[in-house]
Amino acid sequence: MESLKERILRDGRCFPGGILKVDSFINHQMDPILMKSIAVEFVRRFASEDINKVITIEASGIAPAIMVGYLLELPVVFAKKKKPSTMQNMLVTKVYSFTKDNTYDVCVSRDFLCKGDRVLFIDDFLANGNAAKGMIDLAAQAGAEIAGMGFIIEKAFQHGGDMLRSLGMRVESLAIIESLDNCEIKIR
Amino acid sequence: MESLKERILRDGRCFPGGILKVDSFINHQMDPILMKSIAVEFVRRFASEDINKVITIEASGIAPAIMVGYLLELPVVFAKKKKPSTMQNMLVTKVYSFTKDNTYDVCVSRDFLCKGDRVLFIDDFLANGNAAKGMIDLAAQAGAEIAGMGFIIEKAFQHGGDMLRSLGMRVESLAIIESLDNCEIKIR
Repeated sequence: MESLKERILRDGRCFPGGILKVDSFINHQMDPILMKSIAVEFVRRFASEDINKVITIEASGIAPAIMVGYLLELPVVFAKKKKPSTMQNMLVTKVYSFTKDNTYDVCVSRDFLCKGDRVLFIDDFLANGNAAKGMIDLAAQAGAEIAGMGFIIEKAFQHGGDMLRSLGMRVESLAIIESLDNCEIKIR
Repeated sequence: MESLKERILRDGRCFPGGILKVDSFINHQMDPILMKSIAVEFVRRFASEDINKVITIEASGIAPAIMVGYLLELPVVFAKKKKPSTMQNMLVTKVYSFTKDNTYDVCVSRDFLCKGDRVLFIDDFLANGNAAKGMIDLAAQAGAEIAGMGFIIEKAFQHGGDMLRSLGMRVESLAIIESLDNCEIKIR
């Protein structure tokens, strides 16, 4: 997706340790027009898939996911990073965050991820793929299938995409970062 | 907003202690078509205001906020509930959660909430108004003005709306819950 790649090169900022900040247009301040274009591209790429629901993980995945759900006229579920006090009847998985070096719970109500569901998982970043692995586990617990996984940005050098594709998952990333070495953004 | 009120009466669930669950269409599973209609109604109500940015707090505010931002073609910022390890140069405020009986930090980068900004604050619920008060504090720290506050659901019996209106704030709530006594939803 050329407009996204150009935007990353223009407004993305690179920090030592393979950190790419896109917080001026994707995950703190968001550009809703770009987000809509991103959603259109996801819809195009997954057009051949049979999907009945869009799913994401709070918080940065919500904006692209709601736009995709709006275009497809499908419900959108966001999994939560902490067990809400009022949520019963839920599925839980543990996700390890490489960036923060900690493990957190991701949970979703059994009412909204169900046997027979064919879900499209949308998120902002694919790095090590741990959040995506957690989503695979939640879907397995629910008896749901993941029809595909769409990411705005994939950091190829952190190999989560390799891992997911080797599991047979259909993965679509709209911008693939080859390297951030020497704080220079190299896009495939 | 009649369609929203009907949906709350149909799909909302009431629990002892003034708890209204709308997690099948607003804050866990989301109905994007309804969310778009909600955004259209916010745009209509704040049509006379001079606004250059939409702001919300993660996570449930993001979906309505991005839809409003899309319609207005304005950037959308979501304040974060925890200091991200990579965020510098930020404004922080403390918010007390009545539901959870704890206090948490809400923060936003100074790069995205600035002097001279006229922001529209969007959130899913207005109860005691503590999150909204936190946003007023962040805006004051930044030298920004809050042009208005839009909530999908206001729980009138928790008086956050009274507090904000007494501060001179323009508050628009699309459905106002008068009472949840005896687990019966009464909408104004």
